[in-house]
Amino acid sequence: MEVLAKAYRMEAEGRDVIHLEVGEPDFESPVEVVNAGCKALTSGRTKYTPALGIQSLRQAIADTYPKACKPEIERVAVTPGSSGALMLAFGVLIDAGDEVLLADPGYPCNSNFIRLYGGEPKLVPVDASSNYQLTADLIRRNWTSKTQAVLIASPSNPTGTIISPSEMTAVVNTVEELGGVCIVDEIYHGLTYDVEIRTALHDSDNVFIINSFSKYFGMTGWRIGWLVSPDTYVDEVNKFAQNLYISTSAPAQYAAVSALTEPVLAECERRRLMFKERRDYLVPALRDIGFDIPVIPQGAFYVYAGISEFSQDSEKFALDVLEQTGVAITPGRDFGNYRHLHHVRFSYANTLERLQTAVSRLESYIENI
Amino acid sequence: MEVLAKAYRMEAEGRDVIHLEVGEPDFESPVEVVNAGCKALTSGRTKYTPALGIQSLRQAIADTYPKACKPEIERVAVTPGSSGALMLAFGVLIDAGDEVLLADPGYPCNSNFIRLYGGEPKLVPVDASSNYQLTADLIRRNWTSKTQAVLIASPSNPTGTIISPSEMTAVVNTVEELGGVCIVDEIYHGLTYDVEIRTALHDSDNVFIINSFSKYFGMTGWRIGWLVSPDTYVDEVNKFAQNLYISTSAPAQYAAVSALTEPVLAECERRRLMFKERRDYLVPALRDIGFDIPVIPQGAFYVYAGISEFSQDSEKFALDVLEQTGVAITPGRDFGNYRHLHHVRFSYANTLERLQTAVSRLESYIENI
Repeated sequence: MEVLAKAYRMEAEGRDVIHLEVGEPDFESPVEVVNAGCKALTSGRTKYTPALGIQSLRQAIADTYPKACKPEIERVAVTPGSSGALMLAFGVLIDAGDEVLLADPGYPCNSNFIRLYGGEPKLVPVDASSNYQLTADLIRRNWTSKTQAVLIASPSNPTGTIISPSEMTAVVNTVEELGGVCIVDEIYHGLTYDVEIRTALHDSDNVFIINSFSKYFGMTGWRIGWLVSPDTYVDEVNKFAQNLYISTSAPAQYAAVSALTEPVLAECERRRLMFKERRDYLVPALRDIGFDIPVIPQGAFYVYAGISEFSQDSEKFALDVLEQTGVAITPGRDFGNYRHLHHVRFSYANTLERLQTAVSRLESYIENI
Repeated sequence: MEVLAKAYRMEAEGRDVIHLEVGEPDFESPVEVVNAGCKALTSGRTKYTPALGIQSLRQAIADTYPKACKPEIERVAVTPGSSGALMLAFGVLIDAGDEVLLADPGYPCNSNFIRLYGGEPKLVPVDASSNYQLTADLIRRNWTSKTQAVLIASPSNPTGTIISPSEMTAVVNTVEELGGVCIVDEIYHGLTYDVEIRTALHDSDNVFIINSFSKYFGMTGWRIGWLVSPDTYVDEVNKFAQNLYISTSAPAQYAAVSALTEPVLAECERRRLMFKERRDYLVPALRDIGFDIPVIPQGAFYVYAGISEFSQDSEKFALDVLEQTGVAITPGRDFGNYRHLHHVRFSYANTLERLQTAVSRLESYIENI
């Protein structure tokens, strides 16, 4: 946040800042989605909807899953962003004192949702050896009598790495065997490169799936996501939703239906290829100037890079880079406690041209430290 | 909820149901708001905004308050509906074990937000003698060492009653003296009849004000509200907002700016007069057929009516009325524990003509029990 505040101050002073700290796509919402949103507004779709969302969207979401693991519509809840989905999932799972295992580094808000319900986030350090993902073995070793759930995010923020299908199967089986539940954050599904990714619904109906229209569909500001719950939690999810937010934005829901149609999906595929092109440029370019990137990120739009060669304090490094070069990046502290002083996150939600300028500025900076 | 489900089933079977159970205005969002929403969408206002909202809306909201008690823009947080505002206010105020005093009857979700943080809602029975509002005296008598806050809702849901300016002053002073904080739900401000209503900011800067574009502006489905916090809580509110929902809907925020302009306010005033006309019809009409309405509701669009003359079980009564007459009303149980079996809530968010038909059906029903 300090980086962001400083970046805005510098821009206000007329400096050219290259924003590689951002967590949202640089693309606009697809035009079909915008048009559907307007149509919803002008046709009076501006009232409360059922707490779990309009039927047409719940069905369209269910239909995005492969036939073999397609959830019944009742299990699909439309939510105000994936934040809403996390709030519901932890809400029905966590009682005071329960522990949840999470990978460190990871998305920082997860811990706060757990604490909201009096639960205890237990951060498990992960590194390149497991693709920055939890493994069945790590879960088993960190499990206690208080552990209630495990959160897996794949692709991961901040590392962009993916859990392999076989490891996911092992994780889900292990957690079930231990008597817990998996929450799987799939909000960057769709944004993967070179690899196939598989929903965890493939492995079990007894997992919670978090997803969102924000990233793949470029719809961050609409605030619309979803949760797929196990059958047994559906009623409680509904109660929580009614109490916590009454209804998700009505126009956003109608717009989201149009997101799940052919022309929009084709546009999203074009954008995915542009993200891939940027990643394919950025990772070797950063490596060339000394950043440590032990595994190539295969999803999302992030590169988690080691900076030990330049600095032992990522926060100071990020602020200094910003000050000296106008390139804004995110220090590791925003993503956990494990080796956070030695890492920064680059987002490539910016044009290839700007990425090239950023790398060139970073190169000069590094030459001079 | 049982009434609602049954009402939908009956409609699906072709029955004519008059919906007097609804908690949202029957009016559409004003056309200027819809147009501003479309303009926001087509001009790319579809990204995250700062967690506390866009500056122009925060300023416009601050400017709705009288000069003498206008909050600084920093104290104004834009939220996903008043639900978001309640979540933030209780979030920064409540630790596990803290008690919050609330009027019974009242809006049921309030208790759930308090429980979310491990707090304990303490329902204080209120009746016509205090206009169904908490008083300084009731607060003093129910205060314990664990009490942290008091929630006042004026106009109240389900009773439509208002706390008088002098009683509000007494409440705020008493709570401050006792070392607690007031949260004042003003979401039905604007919708008052025959009386002036005054924001609690008039009494103190050390209160939390909950408000929303949902009711007065007919924008329920947009999910946009606001919170005014005391200075000392502003940073923590910001942190909670970032963690819990990242950002409120961007297009809804731009649309809401247009809601706070002359043409929309003029339209809302016309609607207010229609609500008043309905209330002026409905209250005496219900009294005439035997409902007990000891005080005339002066705000919102609800009538909380005693049914002791017809039934000692409001839930059974509401379901029976629905079955026999097609008029959907809400049983008291949805609003608390105090004498809930002897009360139902009528909403007059329906046309005068439909209200007349409903009363005529109710009259026949009551003649035959």
